Amino acid sequence: MVGAKVYFKCENFQKMGAFKMRGATNAILQLSESQLEKGVITHSSGNHGQAVALAAQQVGTKAYIVMPENAPTVKREAVEGYGGIISTSGNRAIDRENLTDKLIEQYGATFIHPSNNLQVILGQGTAAMELLEEQPQLDAIFTPVGGGGMIAGTCLAAYHFGSGCEVYGGEPFEADDAFRSLQSGKIEVNETANTIADGLRTFLGDVNFPIIQEHIKAIIRVEESEIIEAMRLVWERMKIIIEPSCAVPLAALIKEKESFKGKEVGIIITGGNVDLGKLPF
Amino acid sequence: MVGAKVYFKCENFQKMGAFKMRGATNAILQLSESQLEKGVITHSSGNHGQAVALAAQQVGTKAYIVMPENAPTVKREAVEGYGGIISTSGNRAIDRENLTDKLIEQYGATFIHPSNNLQVILGQGTAAMELLEEQPQLDAIFTPVGGGGMIAGTCLAAYHFGSGCEVYGGEPFEADDAFRSLQSGKIEVNETANTIADGLRTFLGDVNFPIIQEHIKAIIRVEESEIIEAMRLVWERMKIIIEPSCAVPLAALIKEKESFKGKEVGIIITGGNVDLGKLPF
Repeated sequence: MVGAKVYFKCENFQKMGAFKMRGATNAILQLSESQLEKGVITHSSGNHGQAVALAAQQVGTKAYIVMPENAPTVKREAVEGYGGIISTSGNRAIDRENLTDKLIEQYGATFIHPSNNLQVILGQGTAAMELLEEQPQLDAIFTPVGGGGMIAGTCLAAYHFGSGCEVYGGEPFEADDAFRSLQSGKIEVNETANTIADGLRTFLGDVNFPIIQEHIKAIIRVEESEIIEAMRLVWERMKIIIEPSCAVPLAALIKEKESFKGKEVGIIITGGNVDLGKLPF
Repeated sequence: MVGAKVYFKCENFQKMGAFKMRGATNAILQLSESQLEKGVITHSSGNHGQAVALAAQQVGTKAYIVMPENAPTVKREAVEGYGGIISTSGNRAIDRENLTDKLIEQYGATFIHPSNNLQVILGQGTAAMELLEEQPQLDAIFTPVGGGGMIAGTCLAAYHFGSGCEVYGGEPFEADDAFRSLQSGKIEVNETANTIADGLRTFLGDVNFPIIQEHIKAIIRVEESEIIEAMRLVWERMKIIIEPSCAVPLAALIKEKESFKGKEVGIIITGGNVDLGKLPF
């Protein structure tokens, strides 16, 4: 279909259904005894909240998860199922940040940022590292670009463990902050982010951006229709359930297939947590 | 969740997306040179038609597939994509049988029945055989019961390659012909078959029924809501796409879980060809 040999790293089969488990686990494993006694904290309405809750549970420490009032019930239940202690904030970013700060002061818990934390970045990079252990000959690895943790970790893994392996990011035109950030040389944000790839609406951070700047080969932008088409392709042909976000790198490869003829390409399927009641087809 | 250790044999990842590929391939591989020259034929609006078309293509023989006028376009396109030669019949069973007979006379093609053919049955049984090669300790294997090919093949595989491994069939209450056939001792049919498990609306045949009678442990019947619940569970937790039909054996295990506490159980996930536009959730 694209003239390339394509390998998929299926993080939809990861614990709690997404690669976020890697970063959360690695970050929590770095903490000291005294830090672990006080627990960890994050704010997230998505996969990172679940990952921190589950990783904390496995290590035997407490996880405080700040979630907005409008978080879906299914996500709240998932966090609770993993033993996370939920605090409900208002729906604005400033609301959840204020509540998080308050709880950090109250409990002394360590904040685990979803993407702008070096230990989280290194954890996410283990997906590409494992892929390269199995397929060391890869010419390129594609990942989606959201908050920058996965793409930065993948850049480091390809640099240290690959053999001339290039890293490409896939990004929706509707949330192309990283593409514009690389052009301008500073972190850009999205005014709006009307994309089905809801995991990619976030911005880069000052820890991951320099890594991305140094190592990424290019970011390829795709239309919403291309994302949905790639997602349908994976569901129908590969028979696996993936989130819209991880259809983005496949859509990017399909779009630029002429550049990858005869190559061996890895794609990180980042997760499979979708609301079956809200499918685009 | 059920107190048992459960192994899934994922035939949704099989070529053309269903176990039917096994039976069709095995049946075609038994044919003589002169039979192969004249090609094979079947009537099917579903997975078996695709399987015969693809297996014939791989062996290098022609496949005539009789499909009713009301067959979904996507299924016609799939058969054509595998090189099958489609003939369109009326929508009644008698229409497609008559057209099939006519084509057999015209071309001398060999008819491959979807389930009531010993070589097809033996082919379907290789799924359970492979599962037992990997997990020889299994106490039981569950499969759905449709036309009887898969369950008969599984019975033979468990008998010859298992170690006291019992075979259970899952069947919708809405299409419980096999359950009633075992009770009455003769092949019963369904007056209606209002089940979401569209692959299970067919009846047993005189080749597979005696095998099932001799070897099956029991058939467990489930409600439509239990099928949908089991299907949702697999999609949401295992992140794989399965047809409603293969949610039936899991629903059966969940329903009778008390009987399988501490056991090791295999479930044949029979296929993953679903119309994403017609999901029950």
